Amino acid sequence: MDLVSSLDPAIATRLKRDADGLVPAVVQDVESRDVLMVGWMDDEALHRTLTTGRGTFWSRSRQEYWVKGETSGHTQAVREVRLDCDGDTLLVLVDQSGPACHTGERTCFDADRLL
Amino acid sequence: MDLVSSLDPAIATRLKRDADGLVPAVVQDVESRDVLMVGWMDDEALHRTLTTGRGTFWSRSRQEYWVKGETSGHTQAVREVRLDCDGDTLLVLVDQSGPACHTGERTCFDADRLL
Repeated sequence: MDLVSSLDPAIATRLKRDADGLVPAVVQDVESRDVLMVGWMDDEALHRTLTTGRGTFWSRSRQEYWVKGETSGHTQAVREVRLDCDGDTLLVLVDQSGPACHTGERTCFDADRLL
Repeated sequence: MDLVSSLDPAIATRLKRDADGLVPAVVQDVESRDVLMVGWMDDEALHRTLTTGRGTFWSRSRQEYWVKGETSGHTQAVREVRLDCDGDTLLVLVDQSGPACHTGERTCFDADRLL
């Protein structure tokens, strides 16, 4: 995960990563404004997201990169990427094609309401 | 942080925490649908959020609980809390009073657009 990344150094210096070199990336639907999911990005995943326009994440469980929709076809066309005031969280605005959740739900937050 | 928490055991068993016992909590404005900020919660912060209706977080830098608006007056009245499909991220829908960001911006994602 700590490979040399091609991420723009001007961005890389503003990123505050956790101990694993990751930041959470909140993915929001640009149309419905629903929060769809949260993924994790290292420098390389962010670089790929910014340059390919496809939501690209680091899987903490599988320890590999994954592109949203690569297997399901439910792709995320990236419209906007923002870094928060502390530099430790990303907000990614996307055009989501089909359900965002691997369970088939529209969002990953649809199924379990605590309050 | 690993104190015994009063969090409902039925919820606690569904939570998948990171190595520090935390999950990210995405805070969204229930009216504007803006993503306002991302904070971190352990079991106790979630318990307090659910039972007091005030957004309560764990500060990773200060290693203490904090209640949104406690010093700024810019409180978050919690309307809804959802757990994601993996049990490792929370979505908190709030009525935000005033700017959500400590910099005075409306959201923590207003200032730094990468794409």
